[in-house]
Amino acid sequence: MLKLDVALGDRSYPILIERGLIDHCEPLMALARSRQVAVISNDRVGPIYAPRLIAGLTGVASKIVQINLPDGEANKDWPSMNRIFDSLLESRFDRKSLIIALGGGVIGDMAGFAAALYQRGIDYVQVPTTLLSQVDSSVGGKTAINHPLGKNMIGAFHQPRLVLADVDTLQTLPARELSAGLAEIIKHGLMADIAYLEMIERDLPLLRAKDPAALIRAVAGSCEIKARVVVADEREAGMRALLNFGHTFGHAIESGMGYGQWLHGEAVGAGMLMACDLSCRLGLVDASVVERARRLLLAAGLPVEGPAWAPEKYLGLMEVDKKAEQGIPRFIVIESVGKARMQSVPAEVLFATLRACSAH
Amino acid sequence: MLKLDVALGDRSYPILIERGLIDHCEPLMALARSRQVAVISNDRVGPIYAPRLIAGLTGVASKIVQINLPDGEANKDWPSMNRIFDSLLESRFDRKSLIIALGGGVIGDMAGFAAALYQRGIDYVQVPTTLLSQVDSSVGGKTAINHPLGKNMIGAFHQPRLVLADVDTLQTLPARELSAGLAEIIKHGLMADIAYLEMIERDLPLLRAKDPAALIRAVAGSCEIKARVVVADEREAGMRALLNFGHTFGHAIESGMGYGQWLHGEAVGAGMLMACDLSCRLGLVDASVVERARRLLLAAGLPVEGPAWAPEKYLGLMEVDKKAEQGIPRFIVIESVGKARMQSVPAEVLFATLRACSAH
Repeated sequence: MLKLDVALGDRSYPILIERGLIDHCEPLMALARSRQVAVISNDRVGPIYAPRLIAGLTGVASKIVQINLPDGEANKDWPSMNRIFDSLLESRFDRKSLIIALGGGVIGDMAGFAAALYQRGIDYVQVPTTLLSQVDSSVGGKTAINHPLGKNMIGAFHQPRLVLADVDTLQTLPARELSAGLAEIIKHGLMADIAYLEMIERDLPLLRAKDPAALIRAVAGSCEIKARVVVADEREAGMRALLNFGHTFGHAIESGMGYGQWLHGEAVGAGMLMACDLSCRLGLVDASVVERARRLLLAAGLPVEGPAWAPEKYLGLMEVDKKAEQGIPRFIVIESVGKARMQSVPAEVLFATLRACSAH
Repeated sequence: MLKLDVALGDRSYPILIERGLIDHCEPLMALARSRQVAVISNDRVGPIYAPRLIAGLTGVASKIVQINLPDGEANKDWPSMNRIFDSLLESRFDRKSLIIALGGGVIGDMAGFAAALYQRGIDYVQVPTTLLSQVDSSVGGKTAINHPLGKNMIGAFHQPRLVLADVDTLQTLPARELSAGLAEIIKHGLMADIAYLEMIERDLPLLRAKDPAALIRAVAGSCEIKARVVVADEREAGMRALLNFGHTFGHAIESGMGYGQWLHGEAVGAGMLMACDLSCRLGLVDASVVERARRLLLAAGLPVEGPAWAPEKYLGLMEVDKKAEQGIPRFIVIESVGKARMQSVPAEVLFATLRACSAH
């Protein structure tokens, strides 16, 4: 079993990566022992994996409640949160209770947010079942829901006590969602680690074929990069923002299309190509880097252009992004492959990128 | 100007206590300089004090938005929170924005909670305008909203950057709310500090007459006790729970009556007498202590008995309280005047207290 540590003092926790963790995982048993446990999942993943997870916890937890939420980014809202709170309160869950988030990024964000807020904060465990959540969203304690005026605008930093990445759960993942996860993997390579990017370029056919060993390598590599960044800047005062490479554009696409039309990873895929194009126009990298990113994204089955919107529309959708400061959006660009940084961008350069990288 | 420090490392902040702080306060100017500022208040306090506070910030803050919420505990819910978020997002407030909570405990809880959640956490300042919020709720970073199944069940710990207690704002406070604030003052004396309790017993006529010097003494004394407890146990892992003396009963009264029927301080008043009665029945204090508390509560204009409910109803309303563990409610009792502790209580003793201390 692969084990990575996210070293955050009294908020430290391990990430465990292996096949079959859903059925048996000693550290999860230890954490759940004699506690009230809520397994929060969605309509799609819950029926497949919750019974197996719950079977392992039966006789260990003092009480187990299962909460299935409607699937999808469009439901990452307060009514879904309230379904969790209603259920926890009706079941009289106390402050020592444990939440287990079983699903993708949407479930992880909401279950984690519920854990942050229930009685002002209880423990939770991430059991991500999508590639995107295994390599990215389950690590680092960012939790949130969406607001009509912006994605993830309402949220909290609340670290999990444990992250279990069972790569076998990816065998049931639709190809489109696998690709969406590859977007965040490619992001980690582009913004932080050229050696990792090269490994992913080599492994891509194996990853798309869901080869377990390749999946474990990718999940471990991405989690290591993510953990390193989170440890250096837990609350995103500085370098953690670099993980949003491609996200300023990506959030604009998701928000403008209506949440759930494009998968998050798809929007980030197109957004990353925009960010690479922008880096090139700013003279930071040459055109071959943009071409390399485009090839990799296409090979991963991801979109490489945004919707056919006027640049003004993109801009309007971007300004409420969390990276905005006093209304001026800043962008994460790369100064070389594997090295990201944040900077303000002249409007004409931004507009040129938006024109070049959106559908016509 | 009186200044107390809440020493919580990088979350430390000062409490300033003086007359006239609403109109001029240098530390507030320094904090608000060049930032987007939202003044969150209610329909009742906002029209009186917000213009004065805003006048002082004009030309200092880069943008000022005023948000008035409906008054009262019954509105401490998610729709009110959403009014804040809508307004902040429509005004394109960024992560460097500052929220100022101007009002009583309800406004402080909601504005603080909004600050905890907006873009995963922004700064806020407490400007409490009720006695209850000046002596208790504005200090310590507890923020929350209510759920139909329990008060303050959904919330976060989020410390303010500054607390300004302008005792002149108490001059417009209705007598009933002044009494509600006295309940928390009496609580601090009973649970933590006999010398402070004796001062309050002496000062009570001055306090009810809103004598500024007596108010400053009481606010300072209570904030000092509160700050000491918060510093020792910020997230209520132990002794901070002792501040809930009288609250297990009080929350049951508030919740059973419907939020807003009894003021929080009134419910705590009746609840404290129950807690004293319980302490006496457990053999911890003698009957003279219960009598002393009763006299003081009556002199403060507070109720000394709960609604005429069966003990079973009280018990049902108490079980989802945050002090419950595995469904068994624990109680904060006093082992002597000025010294509280938590313990489980036999049902028959609890029932005797509930019968003795509720209306017939």
